[in-house]
Amino acid sequence: MDKLTVEPSESLKTKRTELRRFPKKGAYDRRTINAILDEGFVCHVGFVHDGQPFVIPTGYGRDGDTLYLHGSSASRMMRALSKEIPICVTVTLIDALVLARSVFNHSVNHRSVVILGKASLVEGEEKEHGLTMLTNHIVAQRWTDTRPPTEIEMKATSLLKMPITEASAKIRTGPPGDDDADYELAYWGGILPVRTAFDPAIDDGRLLPGVELPKYLVDYHRGPSEDR
Amino acid sequence: MDKLTVEPSESLKTKRTELRRFPKKGAYDRRTINAILDEGFVCHVGFVHDGQPFVIPTGYGRDGDTLYLHGSSASRMMRALSKEIPICVTVTLIDALVLARSVFNHSVNHRSVVILGKASLVEGEEKEHGLTMLTNHIVAQRWTDTRPPTEIEMKATSLLKMPITEASAKIRTGPPGDDDADYELAYWGGILPVRTAFDPAIDDGRLLPGVELPKYLVDYHRGPSEDR
Repeated sequence: MDKLTVEPSESLKTKRTELRRFPKKGAYDRRTINAILDEGFVCHVGFVHDGQPFVIPTGYGRDGDTLYLHGSSASRMMRALSKEIPICVTVTLIDALVLARSVFNHSVNHRSVVILGKASLVEGEEKEHGLTMLTNHIVAQRWTDTRPPTEIEMKATSLLKMPITEASAKIRTGPPGDDDADYELAYWGGILPVRTAFDPAIDDGRLLPGVELPKYLVDYHRGPSEDR
Repeated sequence: MDKLTVEPSESLKTKRTELRRFPKKGAYDRRTINAILDEGFVCHVGFVHDGQPFVIPTGYGRDGDTLYLHGSSASRMMRALSKEIPICVTVTLIDALVLARSVFNHSVNHRSVVILGKASLVEGEEKEHGLTMLTNHIVAQRWTDTRPPTEIEMKATSLLKMPITEASAKIRTGPPGDDDADYELAYWGGILPVRTAFDPAIDDGRLLPGVELPKYLVDYHRGPSEDR
């Protein structure tokens, strides 16, 4: 990747993605946004159909400045999105419940990204590349450790790509922010940490003799990664 | 609550919430939908502003057939939603990564709810009730163990309610569903369980002498609950 495209100062802020209420919680640089996108693996896609917004959870992948989404070619969402309508893709990581002494100052520590734009259908060589990126985003190294898709399966799957060009991150960290006077009150204040836990893998009881749990599943973890 | 309103057969299915692609994964009864809503505590709200859909994560609460959302009275989202525009509220619980022998049959075990409708501002006595339900949905018993809101804080907070009348749940459970022939392949198949973990609470170092960690934080857990 060209070094110029990962300049830390590159901003994805627009009037539409600018945080107005708590500007200090906002971030717009690609490095911060990519770290959140790389730690998550489920996004919520918003689109409008017949005047009604829909929000649907789905997996995603990232390759540089491109976000990949996939789904059944027959699905309502994929058919709607492939018409290049305005969409919003949101990824949310929850880090803690924030318990203040006042009920008003309660909060949730979180890191979220909102991306605005349009997605378009991917065909040809880029389609297999994008599906590889998406699969390996969710489980690193998995693409090459499965039966590859047939031509019919490829046709039954739609892949969409969305440029990550208009976006914002919102981040809240740290302890509660109580009003000064409230620290004199005898209520408990602090955080309850929250994380996404991955428990040991469970095989489906139909493994061929000699098939062992792959190392990438033994070591499975998610987190900011420069190289993923 | 009137027993009639919790009849297990009550369906929230409409043409707009009906699952078309995988009808067997769909559920529309209030009991199933409520169990998912009660286990989760973060929803993604979809709304349209100037033709652009936005998807924003936020906390929520439930009281019977009513969903409560709150936020700053000054926020863009709350001001938009209070105009009673069409919205979508989605709650997603992730249970496992599903690793099939074919890349095509990979999936994610999940339980999600999509609610369509409009929200409206709550004022007066119901506002404090709704905020209590919302607070206690996220941390049971917390409302009465904090400094209550002042009049100014109440004005700075908007509460919205949305009837849970048009909705669907989508549920995927179990092992991968590989094609028959693929079970003869030497790839690992099974699931990687995923859950939201809550770690021990951490105080903010500013507790008054004698203030102990409340029992509801020691015992904190989430899950389907008939009585929450």
